[in-house]
Amino acid sequence: MFITFKEEKLRAFTFDVFKKMGCSDEHALLATDVLVRSDLRGIDSHGVARLSGYYRLWEKGRINTKPAIKIVHETPTTATIDGDAGLGLVVAPFAMKVAMEKAEKYGTGWVSVKNSNHFGIAGYHALMAVEKDMIGISMTNASPLVAPTYANERLLGTNPMCYAFPAGKYPPVVVDMATAAAANGKLEIAQRANSIIPDGWVQDKDGKSSTNPNELKTGGSLLPLGSDKDHGSHKGYGLSATVDILSAVLSGANYGPWVPPFVAFLEPSKHPVGEGIGHFIGAMRVDGFRPAQEFKDHLDNWIERFKSAKTIDETKKVIIPGEPEYHFENERKIKGIPLIDVVVNDLNTLAEKIKVDKL
Amino acid sequence: MFITFKEEKLRAFTFDVFKKMGCSDEHALLATDVLVRSDLRGIDSHGVARLSGYYRLWEKGRINTKPAIKIVHETPTTATIDGDAGLGLVVAPFAMKVAMEKAEKYGTGWVSVKNSNHFGIAGYHALMAVEKDMIGISMTNASPLVAPTYANERLLGTNPMCYAFPAGKYPPVVVDMATAAAANGKLEIAQRANSIIPDGWVQDKDGKSSTNPNELKTGGSLLPLGSDKDHGSHKGYGLSATVDILSAVLSGANYGPWVPPFVAFLEPSKHPVGEGIGHFIGAMRVDGFRPAQEFKDHLDNWIERFKSAKTIDETKKVIIPGEPEYHFENERKIKGIPLIDVVVNDLNTLAEKIKVDKL
Repeated sequence: MFITFKEEKLRAFTFDVFKKMGCSDEHALLATDVLVRSDLRGIDSHGVARLSGYYRLWEKGRINTKPAIKIVHETPTTATIDGDAGLGLVVAPFAMKVAMEKAEKYGTGWVSVKNSNHFGIAGYHALMAVEKDMIGISMTNASPLVAPTYANERLLGTNPMCYAFPAGKYPPVVVDMATAAAANGKLEIAQRANSIIPDGWVQDKDGKSSTNPNELKTGGSLLPLGSDKDHGSHKGYGLSATVDILSAVLSGANYGPWVPPFVAFLEPSKHPVGEGIGHFIGAMRVDGFRPAQEFKDHLDNWIERFKSAKTIDETKKVIIPGEPEYHFENERKIKGIPLIDVVVNDLNTLAEKIKVDKL
Repeated sequence: MFITFKEEKLRAFTFDVFKKMGCSDEHALLATDVLVRSDLRGIDSHGVARLSGYYRLWEKGRINTKPAIKIVHETPTTATIDGDAGLGLVVAPFAMKVAMEKAEKYGTGWVSVKNSNHFGIAGYHALMAVEKDMIGISMTNASPLVAPTYANERLLGTNPMCYAFPAGKYPPVVVDMATAAAANGKLEIAQRANSIIPDGWVQDKDGKSSTNPNELKTGGSLLPLGSDKDHGSHKGYGLSATVDILSAVLSGANYGPWVPPFVAFLEPSKHPVGEGIGHFIGAMRVDGFRPAQEFKDHLDNWIERFKSAKTIDETKKVIIPGEPEYHFENERKIKGIPLIDVVVNDLNTLAEKIKVDKL
């Protein structure tokens, strides 16, 4: 069912595909790094499995692989960036670099991005800042799949937010989460396994809670984090709205139900309210608040206290956000990256079609 | 059961109590404004109902009503503030003013606060920025009541986060939320009504989900937003951790289980890891990203689209975050503020004890 590939092999393949799409070497390398790092970190749904999706969007003319990414508005610590319809995988790291340069000079930097596309895992961009002893923040809006509390319409994406913090002797703390109860990737896993999903992840076309992982195909919606009003779905909806406003209302991208769909077979709105999709990226120098080593020592202490917490089930420990991904990354760098056969076949079909070496 | 008071009456009473605690006129006025605004906005749990709680903390010597609040570390856009054990009701607005001054000059301003106390509703501070066409952000950590996913220990507070955005013809969008599935105030309502609570709000002392609103009194814990792992409680835990790290690990306040309890009958840790409790406050000029009017026009459009969304139940509309509080405020400014008799009695008992005019 799974076939394991060396990281280098996946990188070479992915690079070839981006080159075929017309990316420069620099952009192809960067986009490859974002996707493969997602697979390394165990977030399989956002890695090379999406490569043919990006390709189809490019075929449709919805991704510009030679973008002139530029700052269109700025102050010392803020900027709005026009991604020129480029790959989010390339636009978001550009935005984070701008944020970090501003942070270097003034303590913090904040960038809202319009006219972009999906940026992969939020954690990739936030972690760029962590390497320089900064706190990294990254968010993006996404295709509408989520119904706000009480709604029977998909008005928001799974709109992830990420906060990443540098620790001392431990891996960075990385909170990287969709603001929906469960991201679409989890539904896809249940679809493949032909199993039901927990109540509270989706509602059907009439707005009734459902355990069928296929509801999105027949007019259903994902539910916000919290699942229902009693359990705080208005909070998940509020977080998703926050991501949407910071990423798109602030930058001039499309927001809410106007966000262009990620899948090439669905057309974007004929009456857009902005350009492309939006991101929001931030960097804050830790030593803008206290000496970095002090912060890291205390974050280590925080981590140790939480890791050693009393648990309900002795076999389970409290998980530090970002730690499982860190361990995946170390392990997969050595043992390779397992891809499910469906994904391998999909990628090899693409390879044949566009004439690059198969996996 | 409820007695309704004019806003002015509550303000006069609250001011008198803060004066008795030794606050300056300026601080007493400000602290009063934060508490009464909470009641006006319908967040009764955080308003004057807490006044005698603040008083008891002061009696115990845990609140300094003559604080020398000062910046102890800064860059052009960041600052760390020492609240000198002052009322959070006074320290947090000070921090927001610093953030806004920095934002005025450089586009954004960010302040981490240590050595403070509870700051009332997060929305109050964030809304200060909105009045100047800035996006306001406010967070605070709080007494440990919440068990992270898998834990059978209270390690985090209900740690609220707030994002507030200026709109055009509509009230500001204010996302102001505890990162727990339900805040303690909701349990108190169920306790008074002698009713059960939904599954997923608390666990008992053995870590089992419970519908008893009194579990916290016998070793139980609140649960993070998401309630259980299947429904994303690791996300609620991650958000709460983010608030804790930004508010306290970054500033030098106490974090996690070391946060001093809000109730005077519980003693703070004998081995603190920092000073007092922490806040994190931010302000971003909207016109640092795009002209403010453009942003507001689009936010109005966002609001209109969400308000007119198709709903499951025709009698319920999608709620814009902050709108219910806005309507409460307009209504209660005219009709007065209803206080439950238990709270009125508590306040009048305090009044007798400290010799101020009763309500």
